Amino acid sequence: MTQSSSPTAAMLVIGDEILSGRTRDANMHYLAGELVKHGLPLFEVRVVSDDRAAIIAAVQALSEQYTHVFTSGGIGPTHDDITAECIAAAFGASIDVRADARALLQAHYDAMGTEMNAARLRMARIPDGAALIANPISAAPGFSLGNVHVMAGVPAIFQAMLADILPRLQGGDPVLSQSVTVEKAEGDIAAGLGALAESYGDLSFGSYPTYSDGRYRVTVVVRGTDGARIDAAMAELAQQLDLAAS
Amino acid sequence: MTQSSSPTAAMLVIGDEILSGRTRDANMHYLAGELVKHGLPLFEVRVVSDDRAAIIAAVQALSEQYTHVFTSGGIGPTHDDITAECIAAAFGASIDVRADARALLQAHYDAMGTEMNAARLRMARIPDGAALIANPISAAPGFSLGNVHVMAGVPAIFQAMLADILPRLQGGDPVLSQSVTVEKAEGDIAAGLGALAESYGDLSFGSYPTYSDGRYRVTVVVRGTDGARIDAAMAELAQQLDLAAS
Repeated sequence: MTQSSSPTAAMLVIGDEILSGRTRDANMHYLAGELVKHGLPLFEVRVVSDDRAAIIAAVQALSEQYTHVFTSGGIGPTHDDITAECIAAAFGASIDVRADARALLQAHYDAMGTEMNAARLRMARIPDGAALIANPISAAPGFSLGNVHVMAGVPAIFQAMLADILPRLQGGDPVLSQSVTVEKAEGDIAAGLGALAESYGDLSFGSYPTYSDGRYRVTVVVRGTDGARIDAAMAELAQQLDLAAS
Repeated sequence: MTQSSSPTAAMLVIGDEILSGRTRDANMHYLAGELVKHGLPLFEVRVVSDDRAAIIAAVQALSEQYTHVFTSGGIGPTHDDITAECIAAAFGASIDVRADARALLQAHYDAMGTEMNAARLRMARIPDGAALIANPISAAPGFSLGNVHVMAGVPAIFQAMLADILPRLQGGDPVLSQSVTVEKAEGDIAAGLGALAESYGDLSFGSYPTYSDGRYRVTVVVRGTDGARIDAAMAELAQQLDLAAS
C-alpha cells in the first residue's frame, strides 16, 4: 500500500486503559472497516497515553501527513479527559464552554432529570472554529477542528459519532478486496505470489499465515480499486494454487 | 502517566491486514499485559502499513524515544515481508542470510521433510549485529537490534518469542493497579476523583465509562508502584463513592 493523491486517513487512540492492557481496543477495527468502505483508507494508527505533550505531538504529526485524522477517547467529564484542550493547543485555537454544546447537554440532562455540574460542563468545552459531531446516545458532542475529528472512546458512542461525520467527508474510490485461504505453507506459495505482485503493480497482495490445530494455513488478499483487475489476478492466483475452477 | 527515568516501552505493529480492517490485532493487548507485569510500561503503539518508508520512520522515532521497542509482523517468506530489511536500514546495518539463522531453519525443515527454497531462505536474513529471538513453533527466528525487538505477527509465535526475550530485559518496578466499578454516572464522581488525583500525585487515576443494557457504569483504576499508597487511595475512593466497607 502506498500513498497517492486520493484521500488518506489516520487514527489516534487516546487512553492509558489500552496501553496498560486493561482494555482491548475495539474502535480501531471498526473504524478501519468503515473507512475502507468509504474510500478513505487507514494508513496509520497511534495509541498514546493521557499525556498532554504526547497527544499534541501525535495530533500535529498525523494531521500534517494525512487527509483526515480520527481520534477516540478522552472527552468525558473527569480530570483525565484532556483531549479537547490538547486538540485546541495543537491547532493554536482557544477553548471554552460553547453555547451550542452547552445547550445540547442541558437539554439532555433536563430530560433525564440529571443535575448539570461543573464536571459535566467540561464536556461543553469546544475549541473555537470547531464543528460539532452529534452524539445521539449521551449528548456530549464530538467535534471536527481542521482535519481532525474528535470522538468518544466508548464504542457505542464512537460508532454513532462516526455515522454522523463520515458521510460529510469526501471519500475516494472504495478499496475492493478478494481473498482465498489455502492449507499450504506460506514458503511454498511465496515465489509465485511475488511474481504476481510484480505483474499487477496497481494491486496490493497480502499474505497472512495462521497456525491453529497444528496446521499452517495462508490467506492471500488482493486489494485495489479496479474490480476487473482483481478478478484477473484472482484467476491467475487460483491457477498457481492448483485450485479447481468452481 | 508521565515518563520518568524508569524503563519505557513502545510497540510497532506492521501490517496492512490490521489497517484494512480484515484482521483484529491481538498482539497489542497481550504485549501490554506482559509488559506491565515486567515493569516496562507501554507508552505508545503505532500501526503502519507494509511500506518501507513508513516502517523506517516509525522505528527510528520510537527507538530514540523509548527504552525498548517491540515490533510484530512482516517477517515471513513472502514479498510483503519487509520488516527485517527496514529495521536494518533504520539502524544503517547491512543484512544478509546468516549462518546461525539458516541452520535453525534447515534443521526445522529437515525434521518436517519440507524443502528449503529461496522464499524460506529470506527468513534467515538477519541484520549484522542482531541477537536472535527463539521461535519454538516454526523456527524462523526474530531478532533484537539495538533496542528494537522484532517478532512475528502470528499471535502464537509472537507470544512464544516474547517469552524468550522479555526475561532478558531489565524491568522497573511492576506497575500495580486496583479498580472499582460503580453504577454511577461519570459526571457525578468527577469532582471528587479529580481532587483525589491531585492529593495522590504519585499515582495515576483513570476513569473508564461503559454503556450497556441502557445503564452507565464507570470503572476507576488507580495505578502506581507503591501498593500501600494505592490501598490508601482506594480507601478514600470507597468513602467518596459511598461504598460500604466489606
